[in-house]
Amino acid sequence: MDKEIDLSNYKIRTDLLIDEVDHFEKQAIEVNEEVYDDVVVNSTKVLEDNEIKRKGIYTTISFEDVTDRHNFKKVQQVFEKELKKIIENLHLKDDYKTLVIGLGNCNSTPDSLGVKVCDNIIVTRHLYELNEASENYKNVAAFTPNVMGNTGIEASDIIKGIVGSIDVDLIIVIDALASSKIERVNKTIQLTNTGISPGSGVGNYRKEVSENTLNIPVIAIGVPTVVDAVIIVSDTINLLMKKIEYMKNNDAKEKLKAKNRVNYLKEKREQLNDVEKSNLLGLIGQLSDDDLKSFIYEVLSPIGYNMMVTPKEIDFIIEKLSLLISKGINNVIHELQI
Amino acid sequence: MDKEIDLSNYKIRTDLLIDEVDHFEKQAIEVNEEVYDDVVVNSTKVLEDNEIKRKGIYTTISFEDVTDRHNFKKVQQVFEKELKKIIENLHLKDDYKTLVIGLGNCNSTPDSLGVKVCDNIIVTRHLYELNEASENYKNVAAFTPNVMGNTGIEASDIIKGIVGSIDVDLIIVIDALASSKIERVNKTIQLTNTGISPGSGVGNYRKEVSENTLNIPVIAIGVPTVVDAVIIVSDTINLLMKKIEYMKNNDAKEKLKAKNRVNYLKEKREQLNDVEKSNLLGLIGQLSDDDLKSFIYEVLSPIGYNMMVTPKEIDFIIEKLSLLISKGINNVIHELQI
Amino acid sequence: MDKEIDLSNYKIRTDLLIDEVDHFEKQAIEVNEEVYDDVVVNSTKVLEDNEIKRKGIYTTISFEDVTDRHNFKKVQQVFEKELKKIIENLHLKDDYKTLVIGLGNCNSTPDSLGVKVCDNIIVTRHLYELNEASENYKNVAAFTPNVMGNTGIEASDIIKGIVGSIDVDLIIVIDALASSKIERVNKTIQLTNTGISPGSGVGNYRKEVSENTLNIPVIAIGVPTVVDAVIIVSDTINLLMKKIEYMKNNDAKEKLKAKNRVNYLKEKREQLNDVEKSNLLGLIGQLSDDDLKSFIYEVLSPIGYNMMVTPKEIDFIIEKLSLLISKGINNVIHELQI
Amino acid sequence: MDKEIDLSNYKIRTDLLIDEVDHFEKQAIEVNEEVYDDVVVNSTKVLEDNEIKRKGIYTTISFEDVTDRHNFKKVQQVFEKELKKIIENLHLKDDYKTLVIGLGNCNSTPDSLGVKVCDNIIVTRHLYELNEASENYKNVAAFTPNVMGNTGIEASDIIKGIVGSIDVDLIIVIDALASSKIERVNKTIQLTNTGISPGSGVGNYRKEVSENTLNIPVIAIGVPTVVDAVIIVSDTINLLMKKIEYMKNNDAKEKLKAKNRVNYLKEKREQLNDVEKSNLLGLIGQLSDDDLKSFIYEVLSPIGYNMMVTPKEIDFIIEKLSLLISKGINNVIHELQI
Repeated sequence: MDKEIDLSNYKIRTDLLIDEVDHFEKQAIEVNEEVYDDVVVNSTKVLEDNEIKRKGIYTTISFEDVTDRHNFKKVQQVFEKELKKIIENLHLKDDYKTLVIGLGNCNSTPDSLGVKVCDNIIVTRHLYELNEASENYKNVAAFTPNVMGNTGIEASDIIKGIVGSIDVDLIIVIDALASSKIERVNKTIQLTNTGISPGSGVGNYRKEVSENTLNIPVIAIGVPTVVDAVIIVSDTINLLMKKIEYMKNNDAKEKLKAKNRVNYLKEKREQLNDVEKSNLLGLIGQLSDDDLKSFIYEVLSPIGYNMMVTPKEIDFIIEKLSLLISKGINNVIHELQI
Repeated sequence: MDKEIDLSNYKIRTDLLIDEVDHFEKQAIEVNEEVYDDVVVNSTKVLEDNEIKRKGIYTTISFEDVTDRHNFKKVQQVFEKELKKIIENLHLKDDYKTLVIGLGNCNSTPDSLGVKVCDNIIVTRHLYELNEASENYKNVAAFTPNVMGNTGIEASDIIKGIVGSIDVDLIIVIDALASSKIERVNKTIQLTNTGISPGSGVGNYRKEVSENTLNIPVIAIGVPTVVDAVIIVSDTINLLMKKIEYMKNNDAKEKLKAKNRVNYLKEKREQLNDVEKSNLLGLIGQLSDDDLKSFIYEVLSPIGYNMMVTPKEIDFIIEKLSLLISKGINNVIHELQI
Repeated sequence: MDKEIDLSNYKIRTDLLIDEVDHFEKQAIEVNEEVYDDVVVNSTKVLEDNEIKRKGIYTTISFEDVTDRHNFKKVQQVFEKELKKIIENLHLKDDYKTLVIGLGNCNSTPDSLGVKVCDNIIVTRHLYELNEASENYKNVAAFTPNVMGNTGIEASDIIKGIVGSIDVDLIIVIDALASSKIERVNKTIQLTNTGISPGSGVGNYRKEVSENTLNIPVIAIGVPTVVDAVIIVSDTINLLMKKIEYMKNNDAKEKLKAKNRVNYLKEKREQLNDVEKSNLLGLIGQLSDDDLKSFIYEVLSPIGYNMMVTPKEIDFIIEKLSLLISKGINNVIHELQI
Repeated sequence: MDKEIDLSNYKIRTDLLIDEVDHFEKQAIEVNEEVYDDVVVNSTKVLEDNEIKRKGIYTTISFEDVTDRHNFKKVQQVFEKELKKIIENLHLKDDYKTLVIGLGNCNSTPDSLGVKVCDNIIVTRHLYELNEASENYKNVAAFTPNVMGNTGIEASDIIKGIVGSIDVDLIIVIDALASSKIERVNKTIQLTNTGISPGSGVGNYRKEVSENTLNIPVIAIGVPTVVDAVIIVSDTINLLMKKIEYMKNNDAKEKLKAKNRVNYLKEKREQLNDVEKSNLLGLIGQLSDDDLKSFIYEVLSPIGYNMMVTPKEIDFIIEKLSLLISKGINNVIHELQI
């Protein structure tokens, strides 16, 4: 039976370092985690280029909600703090010139994050050119290259062209990403100084936008806004197993420690042994996580059910997230407090 | 173990008769099915009001694609044929006056179908009021009551108010629905003469819009545009079982009959026996479909992972579907051929 | 010559009391004017219904600019103060229920003011219905009836229907208006407790929305966003005459008093005598203001040049003005300070 | 008196050759005019570069209306014919690659023509890059550089960058223009092979986009969508004089020839002599056209009344015109008939 299933087909697309952090050897990375209430910041330094990710810093901000005013402000402040750190780390000259690039497609809601961020960036470069700029504002330009399906041109080619014709010290690229964990959708912001890697994201930007290709530091800011049906199913099957494990766990103390079932499900690693897994989920229960995903993919894909999906509230969430990121960028670069 | 799982919690919300057709006793319904290429029309007559659905005709048009020009036209023609049948069935007077109502929220892409249909309806009522109407066009008004979250007012109250202040012979309501099958998302149009039932849909219109409440015939046109994560998971687990069954099936003839694996997966009912199911999926494999959904719901819901989702291409699909439906309504009512 | 010109054709459409205030007899109105920097508030009480305007209070806020943050705030504060006065004047019960109605057409930028205001109103009525409302917020609903050209239904009929089906103590109607003075375009907000009069506005709402028709107090808020080419021309010809008068005026003191030519042109009434006018503008110079407009209308109209126009920055201005008005309404009704 | 008026200030901005055709010496240009019903095509060949316009072909299509289906089709066909001529005139290779550039600001309705045209261009370049292009479609890319106020970057710099990084044989630039005649607003399409000249247009693109700067042929397509208040006033004053002349004209035959007063006003040159002009309009009547404009400008400008305006129906008109131009470009380049 197994012979007929090709488990090698499915490759989860992810730009999120945090999704792959377990695949690194311990000595290859330095990890630091900070917690502000329910906002968690994971900063991982990848020490050398490798087949998974480029050398550089990856900061992952995880949060539960940005739709109420209080949470919005809290996440915004953490975002600004982390963006500031990454920029300071680049040791740019005082009057550095920034180009903000909003990737994605304004006609596709889940892919419009970058474009909507650009709509709210305080742009000043033209005032500098005309000698009309206020000293209180840094030199900032903003640009949206749109997607290849609309323009016929790779976003990376457009960016290369523009970067070649104006003077820039720092590039900030914003994009909507694909998530490889159900729990990250619209609840994670990744900042990295490594640029955007090829082959990933919601859209399909196959050419790298990074310091390597542009000779200018590139900070990439991404939010996963879509997720694969394969991931929804495999994440859920894993949760099913955790839940069973929880129910059969007689250690009241440990249950108590977890405070409530919700946290238990989120925090605990599954501890079912192979027999238990087999009882619970038969052959399926014995597959490794990657094999499970590949099998689900094998089933869903040929009949066209392996959709990339996004929560139905996506319009509202994109509005909030794009506002948060644009405010954050404005505040950090122009040194404002809006 | 089972005691701790409350399998009664989860109620699939669906406005689609076709999703529940198996729950009817044979003598309670009359079913008719027609096939035009890959477009399937199921017309089901529910003979008496019952706890599942109101008495009336439910026509379900299932299709694969409306994004290419050829398929779009084909589905549009089937839609027009079926809409015409339902209207003729109402035996309205020749110069009947129509009110087209687009339910939903124009600020939420997957819920904007009804609003976008209204944007393209050829409206003439005001010309009739001013004695400026052309004889070639019927008397048509169109209206979008928006959603309660935006207005603070139930859509049904707004509709009741308007219907009370103008003269109308036929109401056509368009809405985006929730799907209870992964395969129906954006691939089904339901037409019914029973109105919109309470408690369902993408939004939440808790009061009925129907001939019962308005004393005017109401045709409801709906497309499922969102689906629950619970359904994605349970449909996929069922597909996993079908696939295993397919792989172990030695009857080459039957495999051949299915032409290709895709159809096989879609068409065939699962035929695994209980032992096989248990081998494959353990305890999970032995749950009934409803119990499986309830269990998945029980797991996903408290941790906030039971999202309603929509395909990432939703903007594009809503554009096409709303155009198709508005063209169809215009052509049928005004007797045009656009 | 005059026989061929019918000077009676042209009727300036205006909802602005201030444009017609000179046509009232002194004893028919009470006028009060307050100045906050460059923001001028004229409150005129029309004592009895008459053929020009309904009995009631008309408050006109005139300003130069709302596009910079400082001016925006200043005008917003004046607007809130005046709105508060008008509401207090109605002596509503403490927990009055408000319905905000945004007239106009969201697909036509200069006519979209009302719709855009509604987008930002804090709506709570549904929370009250569900017993989930916070005590800090009043009961508010918001609704946009769209225009007859889109719906086929008079806005007033839709409003009547809705008002009949929900419980309301106060109606606030917002609309874009036509201006009868070039200087008022996008620079005036009128508030009145008389409702919206028939036959005016940018769109064409021919039925009255007022306490007379609805039995509920109606506050109408309007901003002139379009102006007639006839008015641009006649206002300019009047300015030409003022300028000549200024240039020939030898009274240095009076010139000084006017501080600068700009104010002089804006403030001074023309003082050219008939001979001077005739020298300057011949026969045209001798026409009364109304006859001049009628003559210009007579010339422009048959050849299709009498456009209603709007400044090319209208998108940006509507955004600012709708934000200002919605913030103002929210703050006054919900007693907030946003 | 005259000394105080500086009549040299006002410079009408126009990109329309037709507005300046009278300023050319006869031997400097070759003019050809064709009429299709009420659509007039003026093709003017400027033989040498001069201070008014660059050497090249300027085709002006004048029409009355594109809002009804029949007129739309008629203008579209004329547009396609003229675009085809200009392209054939460039003698490009058979498989020429086109870049369509939509200038302007999608957030400003009267300036959004170029962007909206690009939305409907059939783009294929990426399919050629992936070897997936159908032979039936030419290689076409499309791009919108947005405006400097939004990006901080000159549109011409962005264009130069992109043209440098991809391979292109023909550039088509679309832009909204300023009109220097009231009658041309939204009723004229200009096509030229000379590119877009600096300093003009609705927006302000101060660097040239032309074969001179890019070494690739540039066809510029423009529609005047805004007009200056100065022009509205001066055009109207000229019409006033024509009307008077018409009224005093005793030659019934000539009146008859003009068929109706409308055409008379449009077609006839004014024939009042100086005394008559003076009688009619005093000193104003004796000013030359340029002096009149300068005087009006002198009056309106310092008090902020010299608005650029656009008809209030601009949203609807831009929709139609952008559709017409995009269909035309698609049909001509891809050799379709849509």
